Amino acid sequence: MPASKRSERRKHAGYATKAGMSPGTMVFIGEQQVDKARIDIIRYDDAGLKEMSDVSPEQCRDCSAASGVTWINVNGIHNVALIESLGKHFDLHPLTLEDIVNTTQRPKVEEFPDYVYAVLKMMAFDDAANRLEIEHVSLIFGENYVISFQEHEGDVFDSVRERIRNSKGRIRSLKADFLAYALMDAAVDHYFLALERIGDRIENMDDRILVHPRPGDIQEVHKLKREILSFRKAVWPLREEVGALEKSETVLIRPETRVFLRDLYDHIIQVIDMVETFRDILGGIHDTYLSSVSNRMNEIMKVLTIISTIFIPMTFIAGVYGMNFTYMPELKWPFGYYLIWGVMITVALSLVSFFKRRKWF
Amino acid sequence: MPASKRSERRKHAGYATKAGMSPGTMVFIGEQQVDKARIDIIRYDDAGLKEMSDVSPEQCRDCSAASGVTWINVNGIHNVALIESLGKHFDLHPLTLEDIVNTTQRPKVEEFPDYVYAVLKMMAFDDAANRLEIEHVSLIFGENYVISFQEHEGDVFDSVRERIRNSKGRIRSLKADFLAYALMDAAVDHYFLALERIGDRIENMDDRILVHPRPGDIQEVHKLKREILSFRKAVWPLREEVGALEKSETVLIRPETRVFLRDLYDHIIQVIDMVETFRDILGGIHDTYLSSVSNRMNEIMKVLTIISTIFIPMTFIAGVYGMNFTYMPELKWPFGYYLIWGVMITVALSLVSFFKRRKWF
Amino acid sequence: MPASKRSERRKHAGYATKAGMSPGTMVFIGEQQVDKARIDIIRYDDAGLKEMSDVSPEQCRDCSAASGVTWINVNGIHNVALIESLGKHFDLHPLTLEDIVNTTQRPKVEEFPDYVYAVLKMMAFDDAANRLEIEHVSLIFGENYVISFQEHEGDVFDSVRERIRNSKGRIRSLKADFLAYALMDAAVDHYFLALERIGDRIENMDDRILVHPRPGDIQEVHKLKREILSFRKAVWPLREEVGALEKSETVLIRPETRVFLRDLYDHIIQVIDMVETFRDILGGIHDTYLSSVSNRMNEIMKVLTIISTIFIPMTFIAGVYGMNFTYMPELKWPFGYYLIWGVMITVALSLVSFFKRRKWF
Amino acid sequence: MPASKRSERRKHAGYATKAGMSPGTMVFIGEQQVDKARIDIIRYDDAGLKEMSDVSPEQCRDCSAASGVTWINVNGIHNVALIESLGKHFDLHPLTLEDIVNTTQRPKVEEFPDYVYAVLKMMAFDDAANRLEIEHVSLIFGENYVISFQEHEGDVFDSVRERIRNSKGRIRSLKADFLAYALMDAAVDHYFLALERIGDRIENMDDRILVHPRPGDIQEVHKLKREILSFRKAVWPLREEVGALEKSETVLIRPETRVFLRDLYDHIIQVIDMVETFRDILGGIHDTYLSSVSNRMNEIMKVLTIISTIFIPMTFIAGVYGMNFTYMPELKWPFGYYLIWGVMITVALSLVSFFKRRKWF
Amino acid sequence: MPASKRSERRKHAGYATKAGMSPGTMVFIGEQQVDKARIDIIRYDDAGLKEMSDVSPEQCRDCSAASGVTWINVNGIHNVALIESLGKHFDLHPLTLEDIVNTTQRPKVEEFPDYVYAVLKMMAFDDAANRLEIEHVSLIFGENYVISFQEHEGDVFDSVRERIRNSKGRIRSLKADFLAYALMDAAVDHYFLALERIGDRIENMDDRILVHPRPGDIQEVHKLKREILSFRKAVWPLREEVGALEKSETVLIRPETRVFLRDLYDHIIQVIDMVETFRDILGGIHDTYLSSVSNRMNEIMKVLTIISTIFIPMTFIAGVYGMNFTYMPELKWPFGYYLIWGVMITVALSLVSFFKRRKWF
Repeated sequence: MPASKRSERRKHAGYATKAGMSPGTMVFIGEQQVDKARIDIIRYDDAGLKEMSDVSPEQCRDCSAASGVTWINVNGIHNVALIESLGKHFDLHPLTLEDIVNTTQRPKVEEFPDYVYAVLKMMAFDDAANRLEIEHVSLIFGENYVISFQEHEGDVFDSVRERIRNSKGRIRSLKADFLAYALMDAAVDHYFLALERIGDRIENMDDRILVHPRPGDIQEVHKLKREILSFRKAVWPLREEVGALEKSETVLIRPETRVFLRDLYDHIIQVIDMVETFRDILGGIHDTYLSSVSNRMNEIMKVLTIISTIFIPMTFIAGVYGMNFTYMPELKWPFGYYLIWGVMITVALSLVSFFKRRKWF
Repeated sequence: MPASKRSERRKHAGYATKAGMSPGTMVFIGEQQVDKARIDIIRYDDAGLKEMSDVSPEQCRDCSAASGVTWINVNGIHNVALIESLGKHFDLHPLTLEDIVNTTQRPKVEEFPDYVYAVLKMMAFDDAANRLEIEHVSLIFGENYVISFQEHEGDVFDSVRERIRNSKGRIRSLKADFLAYALMDAAVDHYFLALERIGDRIENMDDRILVHPRPGDIQEVHKLKREILSFRKAVWPLREEVGALEKSETVLIRPETRVFLRDLYDHIIQVIDMVETFRDILGGIHDTYLSSVSNRMNEIMKVLTIISTIFIPMTFIAGVYGMNFTYMPELKWPFGYYLIWGVMITVALSLVSFFKRRKWF
Repeated sequence: MPASKRSERRKHAGYATKAGMSPGTMVFIGEQQVDKARIDIIRYDDAGLKEMSDVSPEQCRDCSAASGVTWINVNGIHNVALIESLGKHFDLHPLTLEDIVNTTQRPKVEEFPDYVYAVLKMMAFDDAANRLEIEHVSLIFGENYVISFQEHEGDVFDSVRERIRNSKGRIRSLKADFLAYALMDAAVDHYFLALERIGDRIENMDDRILVHPRPGDIQEVHKLKREILSFRKAVWPLREEVGALEKSETVLIRPETRVFLRDLYDHIIQVIDMVETFRDILGGIHDTYLSSVSNRMNEIMKVLTIISTIFIPMTFIAGVYGMNFTYMPELKWPFGYYLIWGVMITVALSLVSFFKRRKWF
Repeated sequence: MPASKRSERRKHAGYATKAGMSPGTMVFIGEQQVDKARIDIIRYDDAGLKEMSDVSPEQCRDCSAASGVTWINVNGIHNVALIESLGKHFDLHPLTLEDIVNTTQRPKVEEFPDYVYAVLKMMAFDDAANRLEIEHVSLIFGENYVISFQEHEGDVFDSVRERIRNSKGRIRSLKADFLAYALMDAAVDHYFLALERIGDRIENMDDRILVHPRPGDIQEVHKLKREILSFRKAVWPLREEVGALEKSETVLIRPETRVFLRDLYDHIIQVIDMVETFRDILGGIHDTYLSSVSNRMNEIMKVLTIISTIFIPMTFIAGVYGMNFTYMPELKWPFGYYLIWGVMITVALSLVSFFKRRKWF
Repeated sequence: MPASKRSERRKHAGYATKAGMSPGTMVFIGEQQVDKARIDIIRYDDAGLKEMSDVSPEQCRDCSAASGVTWINVNGIHNVALIESLGKHFDLHPLTLEDIVNTTQRPKVEEFPDYVYAVLKMMAFDDAANRLEIEHVSLIFGENYVISFQEHEGDVFDSVRERIRNSKGRIRSLKADFLAYALMDAAVDHYFLALERIGDRIENMDDRILVHPRPGDIQEVHKLKREILSFRKAVWPLREEVGALEKSETVLIRPETRVFLRDLYDHIIQVIDMVETFRDILGGIHDTYLSSVSNRMNEIMKVLTIISTIFIPMTFIAGVYGMNFTYMPELKWPFGYYLIWGVMITVALSLVSFFKRRKWF
């Protein structure tokens, strides 16, 4: 948790140092994830496919004019110069470039006359670090090109790449807007994987807490709540934006793609539903924990107090016959001692049976 | 509870394994409920009725062109090939087919140019397993046909089937849109049955908890809350969608059916009202449980502490006269011992009466 | 509370048994409140007034064609046949008839081409049974007639009847829409009476709980909360519906009546305001109860623990001089015994003054 | 608090007795605040000013036709006849008259063809009674007249009166709509005074509770919460209504007045902001109180239990050497007694140091 | 905290004293922050730049007519006369002037025919005073001028000044609307700095509370919550207003500036997101604190009660053999004493092992 908080704060710190700069100034905010930014290109149409890897930004220059669909994938967004030169080739707005390299930017979809810019978050649950890894992803698509920016190489887009290569599905015969949709869809599909991991942790905790609650559990619950909240924060705005995109009047999105966007919208709502369910379950675990701890404590205090209560009258009786009065007839009785033991055991047993009858233990 | 959670998670796991597939790819997500998918057909109009059971998808080919209304009911949605071939005959969109076999799809209504697609959930409370069974149901209706998809054979649609056979109500003289409405209405009517079962459990618990709260009750309350929440999740979107359908401009829904849709909308709101009432009652039970547990605990601790408090001064007095000082005049008094008993009993009684006056017990 | 819950559940049970019936099927859902349903008619215009009581449905046949305003009041809605025949005379929609006899129907206003149908709830607080009685009331008004359906004879509409008889207010010179408004207004006015009774109970409880909280109080608070909630559920939809009616474009409502509907809307909002206030007060009582119980408990435990703490050191000292060491010089001191009493009293007093200084009691 | 509740209930009781009366029937609901209702008139225009005090309703007859602006102020609304005759002169709707004398009417603004009717609440915090005094104020303005109705003479409108007399500000050169605005603005400005008093009480309580929480504080907090809630209830509807008035299409409000209404709207939002802030602070005080009480209690119990725990082993040791075994070698040791004192003191000190090391006190 | 509350209340007090004044009356409400109000002017266009500092209001007279963009910055808003004379030169509405000098005015954007008026808050976290400093800032921009009003000289606008001087970014070639945007953006950028400081405090507290919760922590949490709330109150209305400005139809905002306003809107939402996250974290800290305190307390009570419980039976046994019965055979046994020690130790050890087995410590 400190790690996740520290990293989040470092980002904000990065943002804060940017205060006072001209809007549209590109400053990379975040943690560098790869050594070297790298550009890969796939160009395809119904007929054929051409892949180029590790190209220079200059090679992308005439992509927007080429026939077919060109998908430019950029791994690593810390190289501001590289992204700036790409921006120049595709005539991107300075504010778009600023947002591409700002990993604190929240998800949004913005339409510009020549292109649509979408920010989304890739989510993965890192089991080792026990935290949610959030990656900043930007998508830009125009008439016949898509540019995707990732913080580091990931396997999320590989499935789309495979489908293009194998000409699976309808992807090869459709345009850039469908490719952009397919990439967003791939990202959203991966949300379910991350959620499943979080769900596993929640379930483990739920099972354990009933049996043996531990003092640190409340922090663990809060940590999971926080992860769920950042998940929510990454998905919630997306919902609204994809909904707007579906209804938008831009010509860049063809009617046949819109029904897929509606489907994507549906998936996002399903993710939100799961997130809300997890929140509810965590709330229940929280309650269970508190009531479990307090039950245990009550149980202990009750047993201990009952033990004390049984012995206190017996100790009193023993105290009475420890008194040194000259005239105490019982002390002289031949079976006085055994009688008193009898009295004491009787008192103890009646107390026990009184407690039992009241169902106190 | 673990069962329900496990099944829910298995579904999501199923969803997750789908990550990376092309959108519109049909993958059955869920648990297979019947051995063999099976298609039954009822064709009717004002004049007559024809039933065919266990037909092949090919026999449905020209249903959309036939006169009268054709109702095709599919039990079992795990047979992807069968549903795909049906989809081809009726020219269904790939995303519709994908949603039909995806049991995690939330309720929705989608209008396509030639048909309307509705997803809803059938709800039944399984007393033996003590959990809510949720079944994924899809309805498709066009100009003169309705296709319904269920996870397993159920008796929910039987009442509609009977009404068609007996020509009860206005159903035989109306079109496919009314049949689709009647099926949705039958499903919603069954919600009341499931709610009534949940209501029984809630009431039993409410009555018992006041008398004898048990440590596991808090989990039971949370379990019921969770069932109520999944109920809510299944009904809430339906409300919105049926409202939209009533106001929609599609020609597939005739004006005379719209007033029935408004009635259906009303019923859904009533279901939501009951669900919300149950949530409130469960909240009250939760409070009652906590206050009941804490009352019992307080009662016990109070009685025990009062017993201790009464004996402690008496024990002190006995201790005093157990001291071995050479000169302790009281010890020599002939009635010293009885006097001291008198003092001790007086102290005890004054404490008791002090506690009584303060209404401490 | 069990009574109210049982009755509510019986209703829902009734609803549930209806599952599977054709929509528009009239089934009386609820508890029969009167032995025999009974129809009374008042016909009036500016000039005159004619009353007929206990008429047959056939006598209502040409009411909709008669001049002036005809008010048909039906007491008892369990007689389905009677209501059906009325429905035929006035050409009511089957769904309207279904809702008239369904006491679980929530408040609503529906416009049909020839009439407006309004469902509302009459509320009375039954002091003996200590519960809110909710009566299902339906109003139908057309061009020149109003039909009202009540579960049992009540005095709520008597004031309107009197105003018609005495020609008080503007009611005689106005049309059916004003009469319908007047009936709704009379019902809403009676909400204040029921609320006042609930308010009395809340106040009694509030005053008592501070002085002497009782274990059952928390259930009483929850019971009142539940009554308030059913009140809310009966009023909340009405607000929306009356608002819609005021703005509706139906010609059945004349412009001069609309300003009165706005006034009715205002009253409903005032009822809702009171209901919300009561909820807040109940919330406060709940808190007061909990803090009052915990204060009392803390007070008791504190006093008892302080008593124990004062005696424990004294008992220890007495124990020390009860030891049987051969050589214990203090035992031989002539005033040893008195000295020790002095020491013990000093210890006790210093503890008391220490506790006093710390304001522990 | 009982006073405020009683008065609130008396009002509602008043309302309830009205149940069954014809709508538009004028019944004074509330408590009479002045002996005699009294009408004062100020007529002014750019050029001159004329004041008449304690006039009869008949003298107001031709006010609506007079040139300049006429402000008719009515103190005391219990005189139904007086208000009715005023209503006749200005042709007011019966429902308007009903609302003028109904002090339970919530704030609203209603537009009629010839006039605008506004209900608002004047708020003052009565320090002696320690409660919020709410006064029912009605404003009616037409083309060239304003009628204001107050429950009793107050100084809230004096500032406006002074500005008219001294021709301060732009008030003399503007029309009736501006005067009405100015009166509303004066009322809203006084909200800040009342809020400030409530704020003082809250702050006093906040400072004290940390130092010395008292059992009655929780009731005091709830009382303040309730005052805040009635404040909120009086202001919240006003916000909406003034917003509607600003955007309304009535010709009675001139464009130059609308910018002032926007300003008034702003002030109302500011009042709401303060009210919400107070609610938050009270919520914080509630938490502080609870945690403060429980901290104190814990502190006490901890200290007392620690004292007991230190003495219990020592008492045991003393008990051991109080045993009467014939053969107990330690009893014969010459320094046995001192040794045992040493042992007992050692045990006590080690327990103290153990507790200290664990930071238990 | 008292400081912040006192200052807030002083402001409201200021507001309250204004009650009764004519709307549009300029009264400085707040605390004077600088000795002398001071006006600085920067005039620039693509070609050149001219700076004048500490000018008189008269020198601004013809600014609105000059070519290029004129930025008039006013430090210190207590000098009502100065601002009034500025207002006359630029023909500002009296209500605008009133709001400029009213530091309690909440953020808003108002469009007038000739200018746009924006109120925003500058936020800085004062580490020494441990409180959030909120500064009231007004911006007015017309065709070719911007007037900014600050409570005291600050470095927030310096970055914009530098960019104008150095002709960095696109600022010099754009108009007054861009300058106004740039100033707002600079203020919003500084919000992140203030949030970062608050975030530091929250994190410190979070880390510490787990290790060693202190009684005053709950107040500290509430104090931070309150700071967060005032932050929220300052940012929340801004969001709405900037959104409205972006969509507004005023010609004063050029299309190329609108995309920047959208970006500003985005940043504000990000601030709100961070604020909400902080609220959630504070809620978690609150829970952690409570559960941490109660864990510690439970731990202590458990250990102490266990110690007592172990000694109570032993003390009882010792008491038994302290009895003075004539006939107590054990007392005569040669090894009776050692045997009894054995018994006592056995009892103690079995209790300890019993507690251990139950995992009570």
